[in-house]
Amino acid sequence: MNSPIGIIDSGVGGMTVAREVMRQLPKEKIYYLGDTLRCPYGPRPIEEVRTYTWRMIHYFLEKNIKLLVIACNTATAAVLEEAQEKLPIPVVGVIHPGARAAIKNTLNREIGVIGTEGTINSRAYVKALRNIDSEVNVHGLACPEFVPLVESGMIDSHETLQVVYERLAPLSDFPIDTLILGCTHYPILAPVIDKVMGSNVRIISSGAETAREVSTLLYYSNRLYTGSRTPEHRFFTTGSSQIFNRLSNEWFDQSVKHIEHIEL
Amino acid sequence: MNSPIGIIDSGVGGMTVAREVMRQLPKEKIYYLGDTLRCPYGPRPIEEVRTYTWRMIHYFLEKNIKLLVIACNTATAAVLEEAQEKLPIPVVGVIHPGARAAIKNTLNREIGVIGTEGTINSRAYVKALRNIDSEVNVHGLACPEFVPLVESGMIDSHETLQVVYERLAPLSDFPIDTLILGCTHYPILAPVIDKVMGSNVRIISSGAETAREVSTLLYYSNRLYTGSRTPEHRFFTTGSSQIFNRLSNEWFDQSVKHIEHIEL
Repeated sequence: MNSPIGIIDSGVGGMTVAREVMRQLPKEKIYYLGDTLRCPYGPRPIEEVRTYTWRMIHYFLEKNIKLLVIACNTATAAVLEEAQEKLPIPVVGVIHPGARAAIKNTLNREIGVIGTEGTINSRAYVKALRNIDSEVNVHGLACPEFVPLVESGMIDSHETLQVVYERLAPLSDFPIDTLILGCTHYPILAPVIDKVMGSNVRIISSGAETAREVSTLLYYSNRLYTGSRTPEHRFFTTGSSQIFNRLSNEWFDQSVKHIEHIEL
Repeated sequence: MNSPIGIIDSGVGGMTVAREVMRQLPKEKIYYLGDTLRCPYGPRPIEEVRTYTWRMIHYFLEKNIKLLVIACNTATAAVLEEAQEKLPIPVVGVIHPGARAAIKNTLNREIGVIGTEGTINSRAYVKALRNIDSEVNVHGLACPEFVPLVESGMIDSHETLQVVYERLAPLSDFPIDTLILGCTHYPILAPVIDKVMGSNVRIISSGAETAREVSTLLYYSNRLYTGSRTPEHRFFTTGSSQIFNRLSNEWFDQSVKHIEHIEL
């Protein structure tokens, strides 16, 4: 099926999800839309988040997308269920794929989750995990410093290691064998988090797991593109294309060509 | 949704898949059916495999299953697509989940697959992998000694290590970073295979990946059971319940109570 996969986010963070979808589904065409003008969504009232997210969804429905990824924890919490009910295409959020992967991985049923304060306070991961397995112990920890740290671009510095080490220290009170990165920015910090947590804790990246489920759902709904081509991706932003380019350059060593500015 | 998940197999091998479904979905009720009387399916003409598999499917449809797992490579190759088209419930085979997990894991796009001669010769994994990513290199290797080895029960012996070491030697010619266990018996040998392949090769178990996709599909089709209960599983066989009990005891350190003998 030739139509694109639509990925929406409040900003640039969802690009970690987009990158994984491109890697795991190299034949698929990706349309990415970041609502950078209104980013971050986290502090906004839920009704506003819902309005802005639906604007992005309608924009992409007109572009005939075959599957929608909501690559933002706040937007997932706000509209996922409603979108799954109303849209005629599969809709994937970033919370449940990480939860399922964590349950697959854990042997002692002790799972850690890190995310923004909004995500941790919403208990969305706890609910997703407990819906599947009531016996699992979930240890949530908000890491408010991590998004600014990623966006500052100083990933490899000694200071970053120090901040991550101190912030994650409370997790060492629990015998977790699995840690979910519950924020789309965190995969950029994964090497540092991995070093701090040690080899006994497996790191689950929501982006990689979301991409895996996109692959699964395209297959089961007969939407996979199985021909041969080099897909032409498109990138849209409501804000500054410079920020977009700077971050995608720093994070992925590649600039995003042809960013299209749109108004929503 | 209260209905059971149906898992069918030519024999006892699919119990490795059933065990993973029970572990990753502890609230779900499992019905397992092993056609032990006609096992193995591998050497049979495809029309026979199709007839026998459809008999199992009809038996379970009458029991009102909410999702079907075909936990047998031969039966998956023979009827998966037809069953997905005709049944009103999701149908999961054991080939594609392993393929998707391997693509998620590989960094150098060099993937090994081991299985029975039938599975390797069918090139089913090559097709599933290439459908998603045409650039991936797939190195298939038939391991005809492994099923008898598992069923002999001598997993921890020095002889087993020797046989596995010699059989897998040809794989060391390729720089694979991912190895798919393409047979439901092989997870029993996973610790030995892991030791032989070394820490640079990640082992992908079809059973664990199939269970993960069962979890994914139950969620997206609104079929997940989210209440609280201790589910009562049921086990059916067309053959001897003694063999069933002996193998499940040896493999899982637990006997299967109440095996029901049926005629198909």
